[in-house]
Amino acid sequence: MKWSWKLARIAGIDVNIHATFLLLVLWFAWIYWANFGTVFAAIQGAVYIITLFGCVVLHEFGHALTARRFGVVTKHITLLPIGGVAAMEKMPEKPFEEMLVAVAGPAVNLVIALLLWVWIHLTNTQISAELLMGIDGSFAFRLMVVNIFLALFNLIPAFPMDGGRILRAALATRMSHAAATAKAATIGQGFAILFGILGVFYNPFLLLIAIFLWLGATAENQMEQNRDVLEHMTAEQAMLTEFRIVSPDDVLSHAVEHTIAGSQKDFPVGSRHLLTHVLTQNQLVQALHDHDRSTRIHELDLPTLITVDASTPIKNLLDNMQSHHCNMVAVEKNGELAGIVNLENIMELIRFSQAMQARRR
Amino acid sequence: MKWSWKLARIAGIDVNIHATFLLLVLWFAWIYWANFGTVFAAIQGAVYIITLFGCVVLHEFGHALTARRFGVVTKHITLLPIGGVAAMEKMPEKPFEEMLVAVAGPAVNLVIALLLWVWIHLTNTQISAELLMGIDGSFAFRLMVVNIFLALFNLIPAFPMDGGRILRAALATRMSHAAATAKAATIGQGFAILFGILGVFYNPFLLLIAIFLWLGATAENQMEQNRDVLEHMTAEQAMLTEFRIVSPDDVLSHAVEHTIAGSQKDFPVGSRHLLTHVLTQNQLVQALHDHDRSTRIHELDLPTLITVDASTPIKNLLDNMQSHHCNMVAVEKNGELAGIVNLENIMELIRFSQAMQARRR
Repeated sequence: MKWSWKLARIAGIDVNIHATFLLLVLWFAWIYWANFGTVFAAIQGAVYIITLFGCVVLHEFGHALTARRFGVVTKHITLLPIGGVAAMEKMPEKPFEEMLVAVAGPAVNLVIALLLWVWIHLTNTQISAELLMGIDGSFAFRLMVVNIFLALFNLIPAFPMDGGRILRAALATRMSHAAATAKAATIGQGFAILFGILGVFYNPFLLLIAIFLWLGATAENQMEQNRDVLEHMTAEQAMLTEFRIVSPDDVLSHAVEHTIAGSQKDFPVGSRHLLTHVLTQNQLVQALHDHDRSTRIHELDLPTLITVDASTPIKNLLDNMQSHHCNMVAVEKNGELAGIVNLENIMELIRFSQAMQARRR
Repeated sequence: MKWSWKLARIAGIDVNIHATFLLLVLWFAWIYWANFGTVFAAIQGAVYIITLFGCVVLHEFGHALTARRFGVVTKHITLLPIGGVAAMEKMPEKPFEEMLVAVAGPAVNLVIALLLWVWIHLTNTQISAELLMGIDGSFAFRLMVVNIFLALFNLIPAFPMDGGRILRAALATRMSHAAATAKAATIGQGFAILFGILGVFYNPFLLLIAIFLWLGATAENQMEQNRDVLEHMTAEQAMLTEFRIVSPDDVLSHAVEHTIAGSQKDFPVGSRHLLTHVLTQNQLVQALHDHDRSTRIHELDLPTLITVDASTPIKNLLDNMQSHHCNMVAVEKNGELAGIVNLENIMELIRFSQAMQARRR
């Protein structure tokens, strides 16, 4: 994610912090300073919000380490002002496994709350009724309350929040994964509207969560429906058969001419018999910035182009492109180059298929 | 703009209201209700914010009607919670004219304040020192103060706010328009950072303005730099010479095949001798949704394709595309079809030219 820095690497997972999170820490310090007027109070404010987000990180590790048991890799965990985000490669597709991954986060908060409760009792802190009403009280007590709140809030069945994922998994035991996601996403959007209205009147923070929830529900549903359309499709159906190849010996200005003359943006590099690299438009622009126009393409440091068979399922292609950080693959049929597939063409195929499916219904 | 409705049409200009503005009215009513506890107070809150935004509309009409004197058409004025936006076709390019257009908005607020001051004096309202400090006081008095504030705030030299436009115009008398815009935009971004910091600590509203200011300064500068690159370029330099034409007699599935097989997205419709319409990907997707795959292209209701000469400046092409709501034009040379130009190709030309310019510097 842009504007985020690596803070630590724990259990093989990078923990990143987004710049806006620092604003939140500053803001808390400021509120405490405004209320109590001392630098000590300001530090207390900052320590409190940082400890709280420490619990959020543990919550995300609950998800990530459970997912790892089912073979799902988490690339990093990022701290944003509205919470933590674990960038998992995917969710486990078996409903029961997804459910366990979703439950693991809130469960961590409940365990933290339980440990704090034991600590509070061992140190003989009195808990009065007034204490239970507000979130006044000792550091440990407030942290316990807020962890219980975090667990309960995340269990609200608003997809893609944890509770919503549990709901989706439950629905997926009785219908297709795509249909379950569509239903859970609609409920998630309903909650987003509700949070939005509450946010306007009570807490602007809730408004922010409403926006993320709405966007998240929409995007995850879209992705799931796309995945569903691609279910039985192969590379052969998505491939471009009309495309230009640039030779490693071509000069940059040659590639510019090709780009302006036609609609193709990214070019496979090599010959009809052996494509080896990809020259994307971004790389070409960067190269024009760094080198002379008469530089030859083989002098650039370009990503390798991988080749797949025409019968490869498109789902696998997408995973392949993502892990190679390359939006193009070459397609072979009977050992000969048959075409190329890029992300744009897959998106076109999805659009056309969905339009025709909607018509058939 | 999405989510906005037409409220009125004044002097040939549509006044639109954005859905989020209604939230602001509700919010004000709520604040007044929370403070005074009566429905009457809530109505007062709503009336106050609506009257205030009436002044904002007059401010925008100040810009729009002055711009009209210099031949610039304003398509509509939209009310957003952070203020009004007048959608002018362009700003006058002569610095002095741009300056007058920019000054006209704040000037309207000062005139309103002056009229209110006269009214307050005619009705013999006492103005005490306490009144001058807070914005307590009569409706007319508060409205006068806020209009003076609006005039002064808008005159802050933070491009693209009014004061920033005046600054740009002043700079443009000594350097190129593009260089003046770059300088004004940098200053505008500086103000955006300042507003952002003040916003975090004092007023979240200022944070919102900071975001709009940053995005606005960046976008307007980018547009101006693009315009500068295109200065002496013609349609011939941006045109695609390798492209497919679809025939009016082709069926939809034919266009789908062409799209999947190659990189072209939008197709001119007709023959090499006479191109008449454009079939965009969006229209094709919509057609697949509404009609059978065997429908012929001439049965669809497609936009007309206009033809320009190869020597036409690209700047004019862009205006042409915008007024025809069509992202493609056909290019003729010596009376014969030479190519097509679409927005994407113009953007590619801009990227390449800017990269090569940056290298030459």
